Amino acid sequence: MLEQLPEGLVTPALVVDADVLDRNIARMAEAARAGGFALRPHAKSHKCAEIAGRQLRAGARGLSVATLSEAEAFAATGVDDLFIAYPLWPDESRARRLRRLADVVALRVGVDSVEAARRLGDAVRGSDRAVEVLVEVDCGTARTGVPAADAGRVARAASDAGLSVLGAFTFPGHGYGHDPEARERAARDEERALFEAAEALRELGLEPRVLSGGSTPTTGRWRPGPVDELRPGVYVFNDAQQLAMGCCGVDDLALAAASTVISVPAPDRFVLDAGSKVLGADRSAWVTGHGYLPQYPEATITALWEHHAVVHLPEGVPAPRLGSVLAVVPNHVCQPVNLADELVIARQGVELDRWRVAARGANT
Amino acid sequence: MLEQLPEGLVTPALVVDADVLDRNIARMAEAARAGGFALRPHAKSHKCAEIAGRQLRAGARGLSVATLSEAEAFAATGVDDLFIAYPLWPDESRARRLRRLADVVALRVGVDSVEAARRLGDAVRGSDRAVEVLVEVDCGTARTGVPAADAGRVARAASDAGLSVLGAFTFPGHGYGHDPEARERAARDEERALFEAAEALRELGLEPRVLSGGSTPTTGRWRPGPVDELRPGVYVFNDAQQLAMGCCGVDDLALAAASTVISVPAPDRFVLDAGSKVLGADRSAWVTGHGYLPQYPEATITALWEHHAVVHLPEGVPAPRLGSVLAVVPNHVCQPVNLADELVIARQGVELDRWRVAARGANT
Repeated sequence: MLEQLPEGLVTPALVVDADVLDRNIARMAEAARAGGFALRPHAKSHKCAEIAGRQLRAGARGLSVATLSEAEAFAATGVDDLFIAYPLWPDESRARRLRRLADVVALRVGVDSVEAARRLGDAVRGSDRAVEVLVEVDCGTARTGVPAADAGRVARAASDAGLSVLGAFTFPGHGYGHDPEARERAARDEERALFEAAEALRELGLEPRVLSGGSTPTTGRWRPGPVDELRPGVYVFNDAQQLAMGCCGVDDLALAAASTVISVPAPDRFVLDAGSKVLGADRSAWVTGHGYLPQYPEATITALWEHHAVVHLPEGVPAPRLGSVLAVVPNHVCQPVNLADELVIARQGVELDRWRVAARGANT
Repeated sequence: MLEQLPEGLVTPALVVDADVLDRNIARMAEAARAGGFALRPHAKSHKCAEIAGRQLRAGARGLSVATLSEAEAFAATGVDDLFIAYPLWPDESRARRLRRLADVVALRVGVDSVEAARRLGDAVRGSDRAVEVLVEVDCGTARTGVPAADAGRVARAASDAGLSVLGAFTFPGHGYGHDPEARERAARDEERALFEAAEALRELGLEPRVLSGGSTPTTGRWRPGPVDELRPGVYVFNDAQQLAMGCCGVDDLALAAASTVISVPAPDRFVLDAGSKVLGADRSAWVTGHGYLPQYPEATITALWEHHAVVHLPEGVPAPRLGSVLAVVPNHVCQPVNLADELVIARQGVELDRWRVAARGANT
């Protein structure tokens, strides 16, 4: 229903379809429940207290976040169970902040090195509530995380530093792509890595209580087994990447940038006022163009400048009129949300509310 | 001098070398003066009142901006001569805002259609100061702008709508790229387009008073002739793209993200905490990797996630220690500035000040 935009919006503006949002949240909650998984959605995709509340009311156990400042922002809105799914480096100022945060929320933190585990232990020693750690293992993304077989080394350092080792986590980032078999393989890699990590922990006498994985593209590919907690993020809104991967349908797209046709320089080309400073510049090789236009599904955004989206139309499709307001679904929704101060919440073309992007720019 | 970062920074943070910034501003001001060009720097690259002030004190005639809200933000800081180098669509709310703005600053606005010219005339009729317009012509970027030969049609509509037609402007976006000859051709295309536009205006009896072009990559390629005003933006900071194009040297890089080594998962790979939510995701085919590391010039940022920069080192180069703070020069500086709330201003590793990114998120 993203074609129905509220009238009189000052463009560009990010508009969220409230019905689609609610449906996406309910569907993922149900899928997790049905599979026997705990759900800890990644809040980096929305950064918004109102959406976090909806996820928690639908049964999420807590939230995942990427940074300490995201955790602080959500703690300030009353969320009391947070997992920083990232191998933080606890320097002096972060150590202080972690300690303050651990006093007010149930806090889990990722670690992927012996040195960080030791520092984390020093940082939170003596805080009122125990900080729990999950060892990050790499299941094939080649980003952060130790090989699963090395999980024991990091877990032992954490345990020796007085931290409670809860289990392990991984991110199947190599499941992003056009190939459904790659996603299937990523889901299996995830299971295997967490299985191995669990074994490594058990060898130390540490029974893992949480093995956390999952991303929106691997939704529905999880099997009961080693993974018992999921951290998908993008599913609340979906985006043009998820659509291109076949991970959602057009009716599951909950967020678009309302943007104005500011120029029609040629019969087959028009220009919108939503550029990369609104949509973000993420572009995977397997996605066509820089976004998806629900009203012009056959059009291609061939170039994205900071304040221009250049759209090409196939022959025979008439260009929109100057001044028309169109919806543009971004390639990857996490960027535009982090570029906006607020989200316009709408239902069937009527504006219901505006929600603040409370954790916008929370990068530290 | 970006290697010398202030100690104790909470990372990631954008750090600006005050000396390099001042030198870049002075050098461009001198180049414009020497060539007989008026300089109207594009403020989208810094969005910062303190930097605008330095540009104006160095002799800039006024500022260029991309959006009405950028113009409003700079007007609020006291800048009184602004060119919105963009073909705004003056809908009802923009018409009101334009009129308010025109009452307090000398305002120039871009137009590239008869319809927008008419609306703009309606919008500002009766305001205290005349709004002046420049017709946007396309010199090869294939973005907005009419063909130069059509400039007269738009100019006539603007003139008929009661607007003062000042001249024409263009953007040589097709000059971005690895090939110096392409930049040379773009500079020539720019001259030709503005020459033709000027002729088209003269045929209507409208003597053009401003012909505006220029971007950082075409710096130094301008010849006296039709172009008489320049609008470069990126030159204040430069970035990894400008470096790759040979448009600046390493010593001319004024901005970097200070970021912490959070993971060293392999001897030839480490991970920094500045990702695409800090550096932006712009990546041209002709730039190697996702940013430039002054301390590791032979390293490549092979993958950029939202909060991870994955760096690969050539054989034999030892990885930095966990917790080290390194400088990362972004590929395209306009994105990271728009993602940050403030810039840390430093000289030889000492923090001098923090400047607010006053026009961050000013997209409307």
